[in-house]
Amino acid sequence: MGLTVLKVGGAVVENAESLARLIADFAAMEGPKVLVHGGGRSATAMAERLGMETRMVEGRRITDEDMLGVVTMVYGGLVNKRIVALLQAAGVNALGLTGADMDIIRSHRRPPKGGIDYGWVGDVDRADGQRLARLLGEGIVPVIAPLTHDGQGHLLNTNADTMAQTVACALARHYEVSLRYAFEKRGVMRNPDDPETLIPNITEVDFRRLCEEGVIQGGMKPKVENALEAIRQGVAEVRIGETRIA
Amino acid sequence: MGLTVLKVGGAVVENAESLARLIADFAAMEGPKVLVHGGGRSATAMAERLGMETRMVEGRRITDEDMLGVVTMVYGGLVNKRIVALLQAAGVNALGLTGADMDIIRSHRRPPKGGIDYGWVGDVDRADGQRLARLLGEGIVPVIAPLTHDGQGHLLNTNADTMAQTVACALARHYEVSLRYAFEKRGVMRNPDDPETLIPNITEVDFRRLCEEGVIQGGMKPKVENALEAIRQGVAEVRIGETRIA
Repeated sequence: MGLTVLKVGGAVVENAESLARLIADFAAMEGPKVLVHGGGRSATAMAERLGMETRMVEGRRITDEDMLGVVTMVYGGLVNKRIVALLQAAGVNALGLTGADMDIIRSHRRPPKGGIDYGWVGDVDRADGQRLARLLGEGIVPVIAPLTHDGQGHLLNTNADTMAQTVACALARHYEVSLRYAFEKRGVMRNPDDPETLIPNITEVDFRRLCEEGVIQGGMKPKVENALEAIRQGVAEVRIGETRIA
Repeated sequence: MGLTVLKVGGAVVENAESLARLIADFAAMEGPKVLVHGGGRSATAMAERLGMETRMVEGRRITDEDMLGVVTMVYGGLVNKRIVALLQAAGVNALGLTGADMDIIRSHRRPPKGGIDYGWVGDVDRADGQRLARLLGEGIVPVIAPLTHDGQGHLLNTNADTMAQTVACALARHYEVSLRYAFEKRGVMRNPDDPETLIPNITEVDFRRLCEEGVIQGGMKPKVENALEAIRQGVAEVRIGETRIA
């Protein structure tokens, strides 16, 4: 049976209008489904309100003890529970989860590298596809916040794209999985300012060429790498782009 | 089979030392179990850091839109997910929940009364005992934050004592339930400053007399009322007091 894992970025869930559209579109999607969300802008805004400075290195948040508190509150509480309540109102039996809940996604703290200590940031080790499949079989729709745990009592700030990929791969043994990364842009474009230059399909070979040509760069590179890794691990298809999902 | 619903107040979960003891004691408890937690002091502290004023009327927090954001973050995120991660490390397969998750506890917004509008505060209507029993049957331990929803997309700030009672009653059809309210004091005492005056047992008749005598008053009154209501609805026993639970 087909299953969709949809990852939506912070920009989609942090704006009331696009959030309402997401809820309606996601509720209208047929079949079993999983939502993985970000929330970085809200975390940055909350940190600022609390007088804390946000430091990013290569798009990743340096997460000291205080910042871990902020992302735990914002991702696991504010953003996640709001989505859950809205989905319930739209007739979707949503269940908000972090990786710590039912131990569904385990990670380890990223070791300092090249002089950079990201702090309480997790690199994902595994997702419990069996547990998720059981929930899905009961009609429950997991809504996953970008937090995991190390099994030793520590929550870890975790990249939502990677979590979506890990969840999709873990579920590929139970379902024919379509993994979708929805964000502001239509997809991977030759010219980011021109939607007409959208690249409709990317294979492993294409990817290497597009990287060499500098077409795929910055934050798009790990996204496409995640996508290709998902395909290698049995995910049926990965789609990048298109905020409108239904 | 016996099941324990343990409600712990904010003071227990908001202090690192008593939290560690709670985790160890709760992990050591035999049989299926549910944890319901508060977190009011953390919410008040966070509101203060954000420059917001906390207003309480008869021990209940006036919850405007901004304050709802704070309690959603603090109860549903910060406090709940920390407990979940610590329980996982202690070998307990915890699942953090609000009432919105899987629609387990539904409530309605409290209507303004006597000129007081509590804002986004919920009065509990029902808990889904069947869903909770199914989770418990799979070895999952629900950890419930004091938030519910109205089914129309709104989260509601909800009294944790009442939620614990509602959950205990809903599970009384599936288990022999022991409901325990753990907090700083040893229990109901004739003289609050003298632990030796602990009242070991309170029946309906005792309760009315103790209220008339002024022994039970303030925040203890709704707690004991909740307890007696739980007994009427089939809960096997209710215990009030004793922070040490194992």
